[in-house]
Amino acid sequence: MKPIKVGLLGLGTVGTGVVRIVEGHQDDLQSQVGSPIVIEKVLVQNKNKSRSIPIDADKMTEDPWEIIRHPEIDVIVEVMGGVEQTKEYILEALERGKHVVTANKDLMAMHGTEILEKAKRHQCDILYEASVAGGIPILRTLVEGFSSDRITKIMGIVNGTTNYILTKMSQEGASYADVLKEAQDLGYAESDPTSDVEGLDAARKMTILATLGFHANVALEDVSAQGISSVTKEDITYAKRLGYEVKLLGIAERQDDLISVSVQPTMVKQSHPIASVNGVFNAVYVHGEAVGETMFYGAGAGELPTATSIVADLVAVVKNIKLGVNGKQSGVAYKEKKLKTDEQISSKYFLLLQVADRAGVLARITQVFADFEVSLESVLQQPNPSIAQAEIIVITHDANKAAIQKVLASFESLDVVHKVKSVYRVEG
Amino acid sequence: MKPIKVGLLGLGTVGTGVVRIVEGHQDDLQSQVGSPIVIEKVLVQNKNKSRSIPIDADKMTEDPWEIIRHPEIDVIVEVMGGVEQTKEYILEALERGKHVVTANKDLMAMHGTEILEKAKRHQCDILYEASVAGGIPILRTLVEGFSSDRITKIMGIVNGTTNYILTKMSQEGASYADVLKEAQDLGYAESDPTSDVEGLDAARKMTILATLGFHANVALEDVSAQGISSVTKEDITYAKRLGYEVKLLGIAERQDDLISVSVQPTMVKQSHPIASVNGVFNAVYVHGEAVGETMFYGAGAGELPTATSIVADLVAVVKNIKLGVNGKQSGVAYKEKKLKTDEQISSKYFLLLQVADRAGVLARITQVFADFEVSLESVLQQPNPSIAQAEIIVITHDANKAAIQKVLASFESLDVVHKVKSVYRVEG
Repeated sequence: MKPIKVGLLGLGTVGTGVVRIVEGHQDDLQSQVGSPIVIEKVLVQNKNKSRSIPIDADKMTEDPWEIIRHPEIDVIVEVMGGVEQTKEYILEALERGKHVVTANKDLMAMHGTEILEKAKRHQCDILYEASVAGGIPILRTLVEGFSSDRITKIMGIVNGTTNYILTKMSQEGASYADVLKEAQDLGYAESDPTSDVEGLDAARKMTILATLGFHANVALEDVSAQGISSVTKEDITYAKRLGYEVKLLGIAERQDDLISVSVQPTMVKQSHPIASVNGVFNAVYVHGEAVGETMFYGAGAGELPTATSIVADLVAVVKNIKLGVNGKQSGVAYKEKKLKTDEQISSKYFLLLQVADRAGVLARITQVFADFEVSLESVLQQPNPSIAQAEIIVITHDANKAAIQKVLASFESLDVVHKVKSVYRVEG
Repeated sequence: MKPIKVGLLGLGTVGTGVVRIVEGHQDDLQSQVGSPIVIEKVLVQNKNKSRSIPIDADKMTEDPWEIIRHPEIDVIVEVMGGVEQTKEYILEALERGKHVVTANKDLMAMHGTEILEKAKRHQCDILYEASVAGGIPILRTLVEGFSSDRITKIMGIVNGTTNYILTKMSQEGASYADVLKEAQDLGYAESDPTSDVEGLDAARKMTILATLGFHANVALEDVSAQGISSVTKEDITYAKRLGYEVKLLGIAERQDDLISVSVQPTMVKQSHPIASVNGVFNAVYVHGEAVGETMFYGAGAGELPTATSIVADLVAVVKNIKLGVNGKQSGVAYKEKKLKTDEQISSKYFLLLQVADRAGVLARITQVFADFEVSLESVLQQPNPSIAQAEIIVITHDANKAAIQKVLASFESLDVVHKVKSVYRVEG
């Protein structure tokens, strides 16, 4: 049988995993697809660097075009990262009739629509399961498993670095700065951690999840993102005392045809299944009108988990090649995107206020909430003797985001509120 | 566009859900598959019975053959249950070139191989996602999501009734008999609960999961099944004290090419993700060589969750009809089945023994474990004044099942062991 030839762009951690799985599981793969799968060419930055796996020298190249334009290569597997230059490679590969499997969340979040359209026009497959939540097959679950349902909510712990940091802060009472330093030493966080800790990485993944879940072209600009760098030990202590964990959640919601997508540190009730997802693990919670609550849990990153998703995509592409049905994939948006305004985005909120410790303060503060029609679920006032002030913790009932912003603006000019220490969305 | 015509066999709870979703989500479905999906005929037991959903009288029939032999019906959806008679209907439908979607775990566990072969021969699809774990799309996850990996272990809470009973016993300290009665009153348990509580229902589902996960034709007879009717309040109390929950787990394992599949009440460490799956929820934990630990959680039964899976299968069949690629599905076993012997099945065990309360007893008991090379992780002896005897709790290290059986046989003839009160497999 004619082998299927693969060109691999990138031989870092994930690329190495792809080679290991394709070569190590060759018999199993061949039993499933009916043909050998051969890695024909590999793009590397330096051919002379020593590798943890044996690769023939003549398979390696430092010239991407040698792979993109290789007449015998059927499928491109892109694990090199980068956006603009990589997009150029992928678009040309599709134009040349090559199918593409990619793990590149940045690329798909920023240029997914253009790439999907190009693929369709050239009857090519473009699959990207590994771009979100590593080894968890969440994209095919949304597209195929829940094809019959209307998904109303997707909540994801989709960034392992921040979940590792928050888990350590919660379990050990450590500070953000200390845990970040430790995560960097262990290789769980980059030396420049901005993309992870400021929620940008999670926002890119939520763009992809919301697009597939809601069948509408959600763009990265539609996602409001807030990271974890301002989360304090104190916030986590208060959260735990009230029965919550602090998690960086991506939240995509749909009501009728109105969508909102955001990423923010969120207080999640400890009884909610996503609250106990700890360490570098990822999980995606999906609520559908018919199916109700579901959750999918697994490794969000790492050489082999991510490579598992890539090679599963490769198997799907090869099966389509055999059946002659490439370029017919679902997951293309067929609904008009309508975003919620801040008035339409509703959730519970937690607020921690530092206030003057004297009579009448609580009445004035609760009046502000009443003025903007925010009703309160619980209020706790306690003195903080160390600063001769009181602290007030408020958990609201469902309130719209615009009203909460007006409440916060009013506190600015209210002399008894010395400081709004923390504001969190609340779930579960 | 020519509509796709569906014949529905059965209009009980799940059948009603299928009608609701197909009719309620018609626009979404049509956007995905490009054709209307029409429920053409529905098999009912009594045409004159009143229904919770409006169905044209002329769509209903009491004659299954009118649907099976209907010239215009493309897809049969079988939600009537039953085995031998239903198998006859499905085989004839396949012979007539009709595709089949079924929720029938009994049928697929007992006759899956024959039905899959018939479908392939007639180039028809046969899909059965709803047969295991209701709304959780676990079958397509095993077949597609993990196509590139080697699955080494599948552990499932795949029976909602028993998980509800064990959860209540754990959370409220109630007895098995009391909770079973309550579950029957609530409609969570059948009036004859044997199939659920004796682990037979779970065994059927594990047969399907193991066949797909390990690519070998596992038969129902290969699954050893033990139910929960002998689980006591006392067992659960001991388990919790030691940091475990008691769960009815289906466990399918593979080492090299050797397989074992079993269902039994199991002590699961509280830190394991499957230990916190409570109530009627289902979960399937999958360990793969490359992907590591994953878990999939959701509703295991119910009108709409189960119907979600059935209609997702229907969407997949219709897409294949459009592409002209029916009957090419994966999931057919390509590996020879080799079952482990009891000597090769290894796990930790918990034993609770009632023993004579005098000197030297512990030495004699631990000597029996040593005789059969079972090493012990922990031993706890305590007096039970109410019966003037002592109790010994033993947790072993990994031991093979044959050795544990020999230990238990030896205790029979050991005068100081008055009773082996409980034996549990231990996981996590």
